[in-house]
Amino acid sequence: MTASTPNLRELDVSFWSALVNCAHAEILSHISNPKCDAYLLSESSLFVWHDRFLILTCGTSTLVDAACYFIDALGSSSMALVSYQRKNEYQAHLQTSSFTDDVGKLRQRIAGKACRVGHLDSHHHYFFCSDSDYQATKDDCTSELLMYHIRGELADYLNRGSQTCDELCAAFGFKHLFPEFEIDAHLFTPSGFSMNGLWGKYYVTLHVTPQSDKTCASSYVSFETNLDLARYSQSLLGRLLTLFSPVSWDIIRFNTNDSTQGFPAHVRLGHGSLTTEQGYHIGFSHYQQLQTEVLIPELM
Amino acid sequence: MTASTPNLRELDVSFWSALVNCAHAEILSHISNPKCDAYLLSESSLFVWHDRFLILTCGTSTLVDAACYFIDALGSSSMALVSYQRKNEYQAHLQTSSFTDDVGKLRQRIAGKACRVGHLDSHHHYFFCSDSDYQATKDDCTSELLMYHIRGELADYLNRGSQTCDELCAAFGFKHLFPEFEIDAHLFTPSGFSMNGLWGKYYVTLHVTPQSDKTCASSYVSFETNLDLARYSQSLLGRLLTLFSPVSWDIIRFNTNDSTQGFPAHVRLGHGSLTTEQGYHIGFSHYQQLQTEVLIPELM
Repeated sequence: MTASTPNLRELDVSFWSALVNCAHAEILSHISNPKCDAYLLSESSLFVWHDRFLILTCGTSTLVDAACYFIDALGSSSMALVSYQRKNEYQAHLQTSSFTDDVGKLRQRIAGKACRVGHLDSHHHYFFCSDSDYQATKDDCTSELLMYHIRGELADYLNRGSQTCDELCAAFGFKHLFPEFEIDAHLFTPSGFSMNGLWGKYYVTLHVTPQSDKTCASSYVSFETNLDLARYSQSLLGRLLTLFSPVSWDIIRFNTNDSTQGFPAHVRLGHGSLTTEQGYHIGFSHYQQLQTEVLIPELM
Repeated sequence: MTASTPNLRELDVSFWSALVNCAHAEILSHISNPKCDAYLLSESSLFVWHDRFLILTCGTSTLVDAACYFIDALGSSSMALVSYQRKNEYQAHLQTSSFTDDVGKLRQRIAGKACRVGHLDSHHHYFFCSDSDYQATKDDCTSELLMYHIRGELADYLNRGSQTCDELCAAFGFKHLFPEFEIDAHLFTPSGFSMNGLWGKYYVTLHVTPQSDKTCASSYVSFETNLDLARYSQSLLGRLLTLFSPVSWDIIRFNTNDSTQGFPAHVRLGHGSLTTEQGYHIGFSHYQQLQTEVLIPELM
């Protein structure tokens, strides 16, 4: 946000509730500290600082409508920067919009550059970034880890179901991974798990879709943080990869270095980078575990 | 087809014309020999033998409607076997149907098994095969090579455009690759190239979509044949891979062995197989060239 806009944390919860409803999500719980409010949504998350906010959604939510609601409510001149991302979907034909549709809606409100990194037939990532004079500070970094087709002990445990939320938090080892963070976790029925964590201005968020049912035999786990992993825990992503043991994963980095410390044996199938005019160095990498996977035919 | 059904080659061309129209394609030219009629369609192909036919389409064609037209015209009891395949699309949301939709239409007419081999977020292939007592002969084999993101000298030459059809046939080296085959080739405007070849009962077919335009910067080349490559030319697929130098490729094999002779240095990202009750051993493999690719952001 620009200097002249209000403190976002002073906006009423009804504002944020209406915003997440635009994305077809709802607020389930929330934690707070002097720097940030963290809302756990229906398999999604919202973080609000005084001068910025972040919303992540999944499934067939309509994230762009939440972004448009915000721009319309506060006015585009109040925005120092609008950034919008979308990953490749498991089943794009089930989505209610494409990234191109979304960018059309955003550009009706604010000018910006959009691009895709990665081929359409493989993992790829879409970025939109509004035109602005804003300059990112060096510590304005984000790391996103997207994990596909989790396997191994923890995956088997998750697929058995019937755990409590506390049991899952223990199984994930949050106390060891994020000892300083206050954690807010939610277990969904019949499956799915979400976690927000706060430590000062820093957030961590993890969303787990373990399901391997007939309609979408495709587990997915996402993790995101604004911690500088080089200072906090260089091997944090490696520890998460070891825990979930995904067949493949993507990493999207904003102003963080390209460490693969602690990663399982892998091949990097593709990587690309771009630098925005605001000084964000964005990297995208797509990895797969090294051993060739034997694919099991899925009856339909 | 069953023994009691008519010789398909005696059906009038108006029948086949109506059938391909159901898929939103049209017949552009045709060649013929004592065993087979080969029709070149708008970026697609149709082959008709006395007891079977094969149609391949691409783009937003509606292949399943051509299959349903045929089943409705001759009656499902005339079908010894109906086989239907679909690959993962570059942009699934632009398709008019999903494989699940297609199988729904087929199953209204004939019972059968359907499956997917490969994860939804990576290359995958869908198969439908009708229930039947038909038993495939050992020489009933098919090899399909699907090439993504072609590169190198030939790719650059194709993207420059302004070639004649004969020049392209020479550049592809069909006379050396398929010396025995009669070739029927077509060059599309503004881009695209299709080729059918016939040699006795054997066919080869190649479809090239070189375009790297803004809306779909994604080249694609498909090749298919019923030759037994172990007897004809074990390295034929390797020679095509060397010619087009794709970033990644899939191979689908029916009753043929798993040779990688002549392939560029590669990693096999996944592979799976199934055997139908008719005795077709089907293999699916997804490959990528060994060196990591640097992805260039595509502005949108």
